[in-house]
Amino acid sequence: MSPRIVELRTRILKKNDEVARTLRARFADQGTFVVSLVSGPGAGKTELLQRTLEALRGTLRVAALVGDLATENDARRLSASGAPARQIVTGSVCHLEAQMVADALAEWQADRLDLLFIENVGNLVCPASFDLGEDLRVALLSVTDGEDKPLKYPPLFNSADLFVISKVDLSHAVGFDRSAALRALESVRPGATVLEVSARTGAGMDEWLSELRRRQADKRTER
Amino acid sequence: MSPRIVELRTRILKKNDEVARTLRARFADQGTFVVSLVSGPGAGKTELLQRTLEALRGTLRVAALVGDLATENDARRLSASGAPARQIVTGSVCHLEAQMVADALAEWQADRLDLLFIENVGNLVCPASFDLGEDLRVALLSVTDGEDKPLKYPPLFNSADLFVISKVDLSHAVGFDRSAALRALESVRPGATVLEVSARTGAGMDEWLSELRRRQADKRTER
Repeated sequence: MSPRIVELRTRILKKNDEVARTLRARFADQGTFVVSLVSGPGAGKTELLQRTLEALRGTLRVAALVGDLATENDARRLSASGAPARQIVTGSVCHLEAQMVADALAEWQADRLDLLFIENVGNLVCPASFDLGEDLRVALLSVTDGEDKPLKYPPLFNSADLFVISKVDLSHAVGFDRSAALRALESVRPGATVLEVSARTGAGMDEWLSELRRRQADKRTER
Repeated sequence: MSPRIVELRTRILKKNDEVARTLRARFADQGTFVVSLVSGPGAGKTELLQRTLEALRGTLRVAALVGDLATENDARRLSASGAPARQIVTGSVCHLEAQMVADALAEWQADRLDLLFIENVGNLVCPASFDLGEDLRVALLSVTDGEDKPLKYPPLFNSADLFVISKVDLSHAVGFDRSAALRALESVRPGATVLEVSARTGAGMDEWLSELRRRQADKRTER
């Protein structure tokens, strides 16, 4: 990469960090726990999120923002959960930036949320370096993805706080090598929690929801 | 995006186009038919390529270049086919560029190939605008990817000449909606050929191999 590109990139990231810091302070103020989801395309972020919103909306005020280059499909799918959901259309940009989140929230009554989810654009590269002001970044690795994806895309997996192995109902059909996947995750992010979930069958959903509830309650207590 | 970024981007793409043009002329000179593969991560490019190299190497001089941010895993997998394969490690870059292809070929005895495959980095955004001098760009859509991925990532799917719906052995397990996928592909790239393949079971492999053989022979005849 040319030095000029590197310099511009550094400046963009610095600006993003400032906006993310402001967002994080505002979320802390409002007592909103913010969870972002990253993964490659098709790892099942939207499906997991839809089930999660359905399960939590009875007891917590939840909402979701979802990024895609084009279409409002995912916001439509998420709205079916009964929780508010908004699409961020990024055009040609392969990740969300903190400013896009700030803009989407500005047009929206989002100040009284317990839990806000941000679903990033499906991409294993671009979202890595962009802080969105989230409290928790969750990276999904689908059993259909290939066990070595964390080794091939270390920055993204390294930027996550928690891992979800998704679509585990397909493990047998695709010949998923669970220990190889766990080893790969452990090597890019030693010690991180790994949950194994199928949003479709519901397997592992209880552990995932408990983890979210616990972390959301912890943040509330800290205030 | 800022005007300066747009300007820089335009310059990078222009330079890439020049290198790609040189590559294309050289491939034409050498009678090498060049096929690139693009898709999101985990759509099965490497598996398809491995089976393809195995099937073709008896009758054609074939080889493969494969791009990833990190690891030489894929080149190792592809070499198991018995055909020569080389890894291009892109570092933090989320796509291949024509210059990377030129550099990899310069260090390599690749002037007497009938068919060269170039497997791009698994990414549904970045590779779209980078011409690699290929004759044929194939985009894979896995049945596990979600039928609306072409609508969500139009530039990439639009840049392809041929589509492969991959992992069709999993169609039933994932509840794949075939007509929705075909509609989505048709809408971003009307009239393009769509092949349906499982590299694992071999379903559709004959059609895929015939298509490659036919196009390779056509190029040879044109000289």
